[in-house]
Amino acid sequence: MGKSRRSMGRRIAVVCAVAAWFLGAFAGHGVRNAAAAGAGVADLMKQRGLSEADVVGALKTYVPPGKHDDYVLFASGGHGGQLIVIGVPSMRILKVVAVFTPEPWQGFGFDDDTKNIIKAGSPAGTTLTWADSHHPALSETQGDYDGKYIFINDKANARVAVVNLEDFTTVQIVRSGLIQSDHGGTFVTPNTEYVIEASQYPAPLGGAYAPIEDFEKSYRGAIIYWKFDREKGRIDPARSWAVELPPYMQDLSDAGKLVSEGWSFTNSFDTELAHGGNAEGKPPLESGASQNDMDYLHVVDWKKGEALVAAGKAKVIAGMKVLPLEVAAAEGVLTLIPEPKSPHGVDVTPDGTEIVVAGKLDTHATVYSFDKIKKLIEQKQYTGKDAYGVPILSFPDTIRGQVEIGLGPLHTQFDDKGFAYTTVFIESVIAKWSRKDLKVVQKIPCHYNVGHLAAAEGDTVSPDGKYVVAMDKWSIDRFQPVGPLEPQNFQLIDISGDQMQLLADMPLPMGEPHYGQMIKADKLKPIPVYKPVGTNPILGTKDPEAVDGGKERIERKADGVHVYMTAVRSHFTPDTVRVKEGDMVHFHITNLEQTQDATHGFGVDAYNVNLSLEPGEHNNVSFKADRAGVFPMYCTEFCSALHLEMAGYLLVEPAGTH
Amino acid sequence: MGKSRRSMGRRIAVVCAVAAWFLGAFAGHGVRNAAAAGAGVADLMKQRGLSEADVVGALKTYVPPGKHDDYVLFASGGHGGQLIVIGVPSMRILKVVAVFTPEPWQGFGFDDDTKNIIKAGSPAGTTLTWADSHHPALSETQGDYDGKYIFINDKANARVAVVNLEDFTTVQIVRSGLIQSDHGGTFVTPNTEYVIEASQYPAPLGGAYAPIEDFEKSYRGAIIYWKFDREKGRIDPARSWAVELPPYMQDLSDAGKLVSEGWSFTNSFDTELAHGGNAEGKPPLESGASQNDMDYLHVVDWKKGEALVAAGKAKVIAGMKVLPLEVAAAEGVLTLIPEPKSPHGVDVTPDGTEIVVAGKLDTHATVYSFDKIKKLIEQKQYTGKDAYGVPILSFPDTIRGQVEIGLGPLHTQFDDKGFAYTTVFIESVIAKWSRKDLKVVQKIPCHYNVGHLAAAEGDTVSPDGKYVVAMDKWSIDRFQPVGPLEPQNFQLIDISGDQMQLLADMPLPMGEPHYGQMIKADKLKPIPVYKPVGTNPILGTKDPEAVDGGKERIERKADGVHVYMTAVRSHFTPDTVRVKEGDMVHFHITNLEQTQDATHGFGVDAYNVNLSLEPGEHNNVSFKADRAGVFPMYCTEFCSALHLEMAGYLLVEPAGTH
Repeated sequence: MGKSRRSMGRRIAVVCAVAAWFLGAFAGHGVRNAAAAGAGVADLMKQRGLSEADVVGALKTYVPPGKHDDYVLFASGGHGGQLIVIGVPSMRILKVVAVFTPEPWQGFGFDDDTKNIIKAGSPAGTTLTWADSHHPALSETQGDYDGKYIFINDKANARVAVVNLEDFTTVQIVRSGLIQSDHGGTFVTPNTEYVIEASQYPAPLGGAYAPIEDFEKSYRGAIIYWKFDREKGRIDPARSWAVELPPYMQDLSDAGKLVSEGWSFTNSFDTELAHGGNAEGKPPLESGASQNDMDYLHVVDWKKGEALVAAGKAKVIAGMKVLPLEVAAAEGVLTLIPEPKSPHGVDVTPDGTEIVVAGKLDTHATVYSFDKIKKLIEQKQYTGKDAYGVPILSFPDTIRGQVEIGLGPLHTQFDDKGFAYTTVFIESVIAKWSRKDLKVVQKIPCHYNVGHLAAAEGDTVSPDGKYVVAMDKWSIDRFQPVGPLEPQNFQLIDISGDQMQLLADMPLPMGEPHYGQMIKADKLKPIPVYKPVGTNPILGTKDPEAVDGGKERIERKADGVHVYMTAVRSHFTPDTVRVKEGDMVHFHITNLEQTQDATHGFGVDAYNVNLSLEPGEHNNVSFKADRAGVFPMYCTEFCSALHLEMAGYLLVEPAGTH
Repeated sequence: MGKSRRSMGRRIAVVCAVAAWFLGAFAGHGVRNAAAAGAGVADLMKQRGLSEADVVGALKTYVPPGKHDDYVLFASGGHGGQLIVIGVPSMRILKVVAVFTPEPWQGFGFDDDTKNIIKAGSPAGTTLTWADSHHPALSETQGDYDGKYIFINDKANARVAVVNLEDFTTVQIVRSGLIQSDHGGTFVTPNTEYVIEASQYPAPLGGAYAPIEDFEKSYRGAIIYWKFDREKGRIDPARSWAVELPPYMQDLSDAGKLVSEGWSFTNSFDTELAHGGNAEGKPPLESGASQNDMDYLHVVDWKKGEALVAAGKAKVIAGMKVLPLEVAAAEGVLTLIPEPKSPHGVDVTPDGTEIVVAGKLDTHATVYSFDKIKKLIEQKQYTGKDAYGVPILSFPDTIRGQVEIGLGPLHTQFDDKGFAYTTVFIESVIAKWSRKDLKVVQKIPCHYNVGHLAAAEGDTVSPDGKYVVAMDKWSIDRFQPVGPLEPQNFQLIDISGDQMQLLADMPLPMGEPHYGQMIKADKLKPIPVYKPVGTNPILGTKDPEAVDGGKERIERKADGVHVYMTAVRSHFTPDTVRVKEGDMVHFHITNLEQTQDATHGFGVDAYNVNLSLEPGEHNNVSFKADRAGVFPMYCTEFCSALHLEMAGYLLVEPAGTH
């Protein structure tokens, strides 16, 4: 009692002091500066029209100047083609990482090495300069994000990129040529053995032509299992393989984990095999593909598939080892299960025991039991086969139950307390439901048309709870208008309490992010500078052409003029480069700095050159000096007080003079 | 007394109620949902380690979900080449507007019209895909931002872009070819008669070649006065003109206003005429250009210049009318005034009476009197001429005084209370000083290396006070690390009180913003959808190829296959397009929607096509179908529940088949 009374007394004293300050009656002790003193909380609420809930939102999301965020959300950049890195809970964009679309600030697609990365990921005869980036996947170790790499797919051109999180740099883009579009990627297996990429719109495999009339016969889908070589930090196409699929339109995928490790799951729509033709008397795909009440969940035993490929059962199409549909079907690698109707998301629970499928034209989330699926496959208890000979399991025998969600359920994430969170597109809500009871416990409005959602550590074996981010496709009236093309809206929702609570709206200023993964910030350990000086980020080692201080030089060789240059505050050496019209010019530039943030840019006027040379970095760039004239070249990153003086000239003497 | 006592009583009652809630003792009445109830302010401060100043920062910057910002900051995207639109005080990025760098989300540089905009702004023989965008300038009416247009320059390639704020779309890029780089642009005259672009690194005018040894003789600078035709919403190159300048490195510019309307001011460094050669025994530019204690402020009487050009005194270089240096000097169009040392910023005061120059190697801001300058020019009271014959005014006779600022002063903005705010790069502070007393009253730390700053309505004749944003070049440790290439840092500072107060840090996730202008949000009136349906945003009218619903068709013409297509949730019509390998394909697509935010994308796999079709918008795109195969084409913007079904096929039959 005595203790309690004293504690009560202390509490009252604290209450009075804090309350006094909040109400603006306090003289500003401890306040950062005097200007703040007069502005108590009540005054500020009145001045800015803030409600009590707003104050909570403000205080739960504000990250004070100089402090860091707790989580980092990696969101796809949609048809911007990039990866957007966001601090949570502040929802500040920390970086837009150039992945598929050239970006001059990072020099991505401007130096020789990154030009080659884009080129290597493009079809022969063209260079792709955009992508529809969809689903980023962080590398995992034992089913947990390890913060080392992140992968992302390009739906438009069926590509997969590898981003090294040591320096947040895209180091590889692969395109199989097997499939023409993808959607069910990227998803990684629990130790990042494979990066999964499933096709979306069927096409003849390997890029062949076949008339649309041959759709059923000649068009196919596929799931590619890209082998990731962690030691090299690269996908190894030679050790990658694929499973041929019927020409249903495959949608999202997820990899099994823990008890379901070794399996993957891909759903589909358009088991009707519709393919448009709306100007030719056929229904548009949207109705043609929406006739059947059930589509098919594709269940793949990828460990068995891997063994069969190793045993030589694959054929090679466009350089990729492909397990033929008949082999996959006959050997139990591929099995189908009915799933209601035109589903979108498939999400494996953190414990790996269940698979949640949300049917966008159905009102349920369907919960499949992996144990039941596995037993039925082992016992070969099929209800039949599809037209392509793929065995089908019984829908009622594979599910534990269904959750009545609402109109247009799409995607599901999980927390640490046994709840699941499913986005509901048409209703524009997130439904929180109990995994145990399969009952919705709360719905929270989203603004508007929520697609994916991302939970803190949400795709791991141990989600954190705490936050989900609703990824809304439309924003309409939520932000200051910026013209007919409006931002998307990420809404930060606190899920730490019994009830979900909306904390903040965040406009997405470029691209249409589809999905994201949210990792604890302290799992990321990027390097501050490149060591040793002269490191080529793509090679990961010192560049053979790296330039040591004092060894700067210009050499004329058979293939053109080679400029071995260094950059250091505040000059390039050499700063004067003389070539002749028509010369190939090769700049090899090393940033000698080892001070954090001492980045130099290198731009050459009118020659479309811009490099970003971070401290210690080396870059090479080659171009033909095909126009005579005087071209300033300069540091494009404000590096010092004498940054403007960090400049020189490329002098291109007209051909025919001497 | 009675009234006062009652009011005191009421105040106490309010205090108690609010205080109770703040401290978590309130049951949550009025709180958005129950989860918030337990979380009082004191609890949240403790949980999240927030100080009292942090609470003030949070409450002054938080914009509640669904509410709009008060100001919009248009910041340059630096060598990202774009324009970044930021809400203030939330510091949320509302949009990254594609200006110089192709951006697929907006379809900028992907459809025929915007490809042509980029092409028209590129030197013959090349297509530029990046820029070093520096200084955005909002259009003005009577010296006040009018919210209609914004202009921005490209330092790297000496270009100027026009962005229409009706739809936040880049509609024009001009490149004179006269100069090879710029810096002192864009700045507009008070009624946007002209958009000013001053050169930076001297070169032979018009793109000619001259050896670097002829620097003094053959290299020149220039200021271009681009004529803006407000009715057409375009710069009119034919009515634009330039003033030839000595080969000093011209730096920033500003236009006179009110009493100084009709004049413009451009400073410079490198009056030493150094030009590098550090591998040839000469000093690097950074030291060569830092020898003189004084450089030159260039004062231009542009109204007189305009009259002389109209009178035929200009010569034509690279298609641009250029007032020769000797004419400009002789006629009083161009006058020089000494300015201390290697200055960077030149800023005209809101009342137009004074010009503030900050010398980056000097510790002062120098305050010039326009009245004194004008009188001396009228009286031709020169102290001499420079080597190029340009008359020079007396430094002491033109200034009102100097303000002792600190190490590395750069740029100055103003408020509504008679104070000026100067960034100090080396000290990393903003110095607030009294215009009346020319004395610093406060310095606030910036993190780190502050370059420009932007004040609310800061470049108008009536700044708002309220906020300045410090544009810091380095961020080092301020944010969660994202690799060696770190974000820049915008710091929002409250200037409404006696003392400046730091409210928030904002990472800049792409490019290195140089400058920005901050406008009252309610001055911007963008359209929500394009009317009539079929509007081409670049033409500003209905496109001649616009497609009405029901009139969709495919026509084979002499120049290839023309596809007249419409888009509406959730299909393209026609959705099946058959062409032959080698055909030119011309898509003409109208988005029939008139619902706000009902944007459709249009991507063609492997053909590097992505359009953004906002509601009512029409786009055209042409490409050669040079590879046979089956290419899905689909809507790349998540438009509806059946968005994935909004797809079709481009079928390219191999050549030689029939």
